[in-house]
Amino acid sequence: MSALSKTMSKFGLAVVQLHVSSVKADNLSRAKRLIGEAAAHGSKLVVLPECFNSPYGTGFFREYAENIPGESTRMLSDAAKENGVYLVGGSIPEEDGGKLYNTCPVFGPDGTLLMKHRKIHLFDIDVPGKIRFQESETLSPGSAFSVFETPFCKVGVGICYDIRFAELAQLYSKMGCQLLVYPGAFNMTTGPAHWELLQRARALDNQLYVATASPARDQTASYVAWGHSTVVNPWGAVISSTGSEEAVVYADIDLQYLADVRQQIPVTVQRRDDLYAVTPVTDPGGLYAVSPVTDPGGLYAVSPVTDPEACTR
Amino acid sequence: MSALSKTMSKFGLAVVQLHVSSVKADNLSRAKRLIGEAAAHGSKLVVLPECFNSPYGTGFFREYAENIPGESTRMLSDAAKENGVYLVGGSIPEEDGGKLYNTCPVFGPDGTLLMKHRKIHLFDIDVPGKIRFQESETLSPGSAFSVFETPFCKVGVGICYDIRFAELAQLYSKMGCQLLVYPGAFNMTTGPAHWELLQRARALDNQLYVATASPARDQTASYVAWGHSTVVNPWGAVISSTGSEEAVVYADIDLQYLADVRQQIPVTVQRRDDLYAVTPVTDPGGLYAVSPVTDPGGLYAVSPVTDPEACTR
Repeated sequence: MSALSKTMSKFGLAVVQLHVSSVKADNLSRAKRLIGEAAAHGSKLVVLPECFNSPYGTGFFREYAENIPGESTRMLSDAAKENGVYLVGGSIPEEDGGKLYNTCPVFGPDGTLLMKHRKIHLFDIDVPGKIRFQESETLSPGSAFSVFETPFCKVGVGICYDIRFAELAQLYSKMGCQLLVYPGAFNMTTGPAHWELLQRARALDNQLYVATASPARDQTASYVAWGHSTVVNPWGAVISSTGSEEAVVYADIDLQYLADVRQQIPVTVQRRDDLYAVTPVTDPGGLYAVSPVTDPGGLYAVSPVTDPEACTR
Repeated sequence: MSALSKTMSKFGLAVVQLHVSSVKADNLSRAKRLIGEAAAHGSKLVVLPECFNSPYGTGFFREYAENIPGESTRMLSDAAKENGVYLVGGSIPEEDGGKLYNTCPVFGPDGTLLMKHRKIHLFDIDVPGKIRFQESETLSPGSAFSVFETPFCKVGVGICYDIRFAELAQLYSKMGCQLLVYPGAFNMTTGPAHWELLQRARALDNQLYVATASPARDQTASYVAWGHSTVVNPWGAVISSTGSEEAVVYADIDLQYLADVRQQIPVTVQRRDDLYAVTPVTDPGGLYAVSPVTDPGGLYAVSPVTDPEACTR
């Protein structure tokens, strides 16, 4: 890790806590403007919130759903290219073959769709008197791990409820990810109780960076998001966060710091592999489930890093 | 779970945050007195801190080490029997066959040694300018998972640094534990940074109770413990805690509440077993590594529950 060049060991990350309305065109134009703002600030990787083009709710998913490519992902591709950034496009309701998914598309700085993550764990909860929500009433789950490469580090992607399942983060860490991003829309019950705790847990247990992107809070919406988009470092400390309003959250991802933490408390090499293991369930086609967007032959979805300078312009 | 009788679905737990001195006899008598105090308060399960009979430090372990049975464990057995409680005897430096272990002995309400947990993950860290500690300079690691039965629930045992390894808690949860206990002595660097976070993470991710027992803080000791013994519920909330002084921390373990949380946010049944798994590494002798104290023929260390009323007197 000491061989890391200074320019490559640190990069700027931006999380866009977007105000999401019921007018899709407004959501897209506002997102595009804030992606530009983040890039102008020097960010190399920008993360949008879950369901950034649509109100969040089972009654909205079909109306706002798109194929990929479609209107929203074309905007994302353009914005990534124009600004030369890696863009984790939050999520959109995706329609494919008659089914709906909660899908996060990821774009490279040349506008290429690198991969898409379909939410693996659907949000079905029922806390009496507080919150009931059943994504599975309208959505289908994804079944693929989603990792993409950048010139800086590998990045693992989950969506919202996926963050509750520690195994996903553990596997991403084993795959070499040093940053996990979770677009997510926790609510006014689970937000204050669990949102920060889960991020800090994933970060500390795996000694990596975790970034979450929530929609801004809209008290008039049927589902009120908690906000509080956050970046946590490998020591488990919140290094950047915000309240409930629309905002861009900036943080430096420092891979040398990550290496230092892993040296100080070396849990990543002290695991008792002779006693336990977290493993992907193999399928006949390979070690990992894949999002075969750019690399149908590979083990899992990766972006080809052909031009390390592409995202530093 | 609705079939749980009211008397069995809730029980009192006590964590003894003991002041540990360099005088072993004082440590034993003080521990015995506080176990009695906890039992008089109605506690059915009492937890002592890591290294409760000895100062914590690699220079002390050999001097204070004992065989099991030995002076300290005889006191524990007597105290468990006299008070009719399940007793998680923190830990002591154990000598066995020329090797030293950091060992937690567990006793039933009849004074029987149910099992012993030898710390699996030795505490070897080096945070420059803050804390350097290398348990492996003098201790050998254990290699067994440690679960014991009570009439109330199964209990999984780890010691201090073991809590950093999420896999252990995940496996205990899969084995059916509803309570995890970690005698531990975090320090003035890792304590404020990680102690509560790790407990809340284990509790929330697995939706079970977590109890930790630290020695009281002694600013004159070579290793200064953080204190803050704590009990966390399955919602990830701290339900009982204390500061740095000697104290007994009381909490009710409510298995109906645990069942309610698991129904509200049903992550325990929503895991994607088709995609990932946390598994024990099998050895030729069985599914799990075992602490064959009471049950050499079984899968893992369990206490025979022959008298459910034994601990309710």
